[in-house]
Amino acid sequence: AVDAQRLLGRIRELGAAGRDGEGRLVRLAASDADRLGRDLFVGWLRQAGLDIAVDRVGNIFGIWQSADNAAQAPLLIGSHIDTVIDAGIYDGCYGVLAGLEVIETLKASGFSPSRPVAVAAFTNEEGVRYTPDMMGSLVHAGGIGVETVLAAVGTDGSVLGQELARIGYAGDQEPGFLKPHAYLELHIEQGPVLEREGVPIGAVENLQGISWQRITIDGVANHAGTTPMSMRSDAGHAAARVITFLHDRAKASNKPTVATVGTMRFEPNAINVIPSRAIFTVDLRDPDEQRLQAEEAALAAYLEHLAAAENVAISVERLARFEPVIFDIRIVELIEAAAKNHGLGVKRMTSGAGHDAQMMARIAPAAMIFVPSAGGISHNPREHTEDAELVAGANILLDVVTELAK
Amino acid sequence: AVDAQRLLGRIRELGAAGRDGEGRLVRLAASDADRLGRDLFVGWLRQAGLDIAVDRVGNIFGIWQSADNAAQAPLLIGSHIDTVIDAGIYDGCYGVLAGLEVIETLKASGFSPSRPVAVAAFTNEEGVRYTPDMMGSLVHAGGIGVETVLAAVGTDGSVLGQELARIGYAGDQEPGFLKPHAYLELHIEQGPVLEREGVPIGAVENLQGISWQRITIDGVANHAGTTPMSMRSDAGHAAARVITFLHDRAKASNKPTVATVGTMRFEPNAINVIPSRAIFTVDLRDPDEQRLQAEEAALAAYLEHLAAAENVAISVERLARFEPVIFDIRIVELIEAAAKNHGLGVKRMTSGAGHDAQMMARIAPAAMIFVPSAGGISHNPREHTEDAELVAGANILLDVVTELAK
Ligand SMILES: NC(=O)NCCC(=O)O
Ligand SMILES: NC(=O)NCCC(=O)O
Repeated sequence: AVDAQRLLGRIRELGAAGRDGEGRLVRLAASDADRLGRDLFVGWLRQAGLDIAVDRVGNIFGIWQSADNAAQAPLLIGSHIDTVIDAGIYDGCYGVLAGLEVIETLKASGFSPSRPVAVAAFTNEEGVRYTPDMMGSLVHAGGIGVETVLAAVGTDGSVLGQELARIGYAGDQEPGFLKPHAYLELHIEQGPVLEREGVPIGAVENLQGISWQRITIDGVANHAGTTPMSMRSDAGHAAARVITFLHDRAKASNKPTVATVGTMRFEPNAINVIPSRAIFTVDLRDPDEQRLQAEEAALAAYLEHLAAAENVAISVERLARFEPVIFDIRIVELIEAAAKNHGLGVKRMTSGAGHDAQMMARIAPAAMIFVPSAGGISHNPREHTEDAELVAGANILLDVVTELAK
Repeated sequence: AVDAQRLLGRIRELGAAGRDGEGRLVRLAASDADRLGRDLFVGWLRQAGLDIAVDRVGNIFGIWQSADNAAQAPLLIGSHIDTVIDAGIYDGCYGVLAGLEVIETLKASGFSPSRPVAVAAFTNEEGVRYTPDMMGSLVHAGGIGVETVLAAVGTDGSVLGQELARIGYAGDQEPGFLKPHAYLELHIEQGPVLEREGVPIGAVENLQGISWQRITIDGVANHAGTTPMSMRSDAGHAAARVITFLHDRAKASNKPTVATVGTMRFEPNAINVIPSRAIFTVDLRDPDEQRLQAEEAALAAYLEHLAAAENVAISVERLARFEPVIFDIRIVELIEAAAKNHGLGVKRMTSGAGHDAQMMARIAPAAMIFVPSAGGISHNPREHTEDAELVAGANILLDVVTELAK
């Protein structure tokens, strides 16, 4: 079994590192706070005696290999340590630290794996500062070019490549250098299902499709007091219509579609000026690719209607688009078997969140293990999973790794 | 007649002063750009040989008086030189510079007024940086305390009193020191009526009521991918509902009510996080006080419904509230007579915008003169009035001032 205290202590230490002035965890990719988190993680990899590699997009690998098994394709465990704005401490970090914990446990036990076992922390999984999300694993899987990613411009105008160099994590390995035999990721569910059903372990068999768009609406700035309602071209009002359209459509269907407008900006943003411009993002998801396409088409048609009805110009930029992914059934079955071995309830389920496993599934058999999230809350400092649940998840990971690397 | 070239040249010079890095006119109250504008204006007052007074809230007065008439209550002409963000060059500045132009013209003509004639530039008429709007004239009229206003905190966290001191316009006159016999304000219409009807002069007989509120909606941040639509407490979506409610209500009525949401902020403002908070402003106006109250009540009732329906907490802060004002009929008639004398069409009308005249009407007979705004556009760099129309308006002001000060 894993060393519960070591694992939990590290989760807390990483979660406490680099808080902002308001005490919030805002470890955006390639920021100063990210550097602090990376330094902590690399220090632990070093203590554990692992070989450390950093690739050109800042993905960090800790590799446990021997002369005997170095010729074999490694088993890779991964996740991320970047966070959203005002985040909880478990999202991503749990999986990375549990991966390291499993390796240290196996090493200490005298277990001699048939192949290298490695742990990865992928760059910019959250996609909050730079898009797309799951960026580091997407590059690793060959889904996007290294140069494209290094040139990505952040919400703060920064350039990812420059930021990685600045924080000392522009490594020299070519992305994708490590070709995994299989990929495993342990993560908090970030949703309400496991808690609601009282099941401690999720065997994640698929992951929904994700569509991210940035919409810019251009109207005409004018005086709030003198401009009759009938003569307005109000970009802010048009943006509000898009939000209510998406919300009502997703809510009315008895499909699992979810739609979110998480960011919004008005220009000139003055109390007595009709907004000339509204810029916002749309996050649309569905486990079914056909339905996701239908939702995207419905939004596009609505925007066309809206542009005419509200006398505004609308432009759309695609920020990320990932099809739903089906994980490797053999690994899903190994997870189920391990849970049963431990006498723990287990449920096959869909992931509502995007994960690095989604990208790695393009190049290796992959699957994920979920543990419950209290109240289904995530991307929020109130994100919580009980210690015992965290430790149970790590022990399931230990068993599956043992099985795949024996 | 006024010196058209001098007037138009000053309007252009003031409009060009202190542009921001993007070439925009952003002369927010008590900013560095405002200092530049004030310095220009004070320089012109000095050249004109007027007595200059600055009061504690930064209102600037240029006073033309003689030993003979100094005991009489002065006739005051005023407006403002602060602007919105990305403004046009006419809003406010036109009235201030035309006031000065009229005084210089009368002085040069050898006219000997029965009472002092003064021109005022009031602080923070726009209300964009600090609320309420029409702040300087409101203080002058005794409608709000000097200390309250000096302590006002701006959208950028600045404190008005400190900013006035910093830019050198925290004067020593006690606000309200000048008790006007009557108050006149010449302004661009900022709306479409005069242009649409082909009338060059508006005799403004009343001004609609203004209600400004700041609304904060608190929901719960959560993951955009994992949180079912039915389990969300989405502050951004609730804010969008308020916008569409206000818009639909104002648009459906065949009343002149206007409703605008000009500012919006989401927190944490991340693409894959359901907004935990939305903060926005509501600008509601109606020429009829009963109807304005009914609109405010309808909004309050809707917010109560929304809080329950969307599972969010809503708080409301009042930023400004002014009842409709009826201007002095005798002055309105003088304006009409002056226009007819010049062979110009004239129309009695309502002001959709708030103006310093609205505050001064509390302490003196007051009225306003409007000239057309091309396309009804204002609070926008495309704000435009033809030179000939600007000059015509200034000549009407000249005649009315002559009449009231003869
Ligand atoms: N797990 C997670 O929060 N991933 C971020 C990408 C997403 O928005 O799903
Ligand atoms: N005239 C003008 O734009 N005043 C600003 C106050 C308002 O919003 O009406």
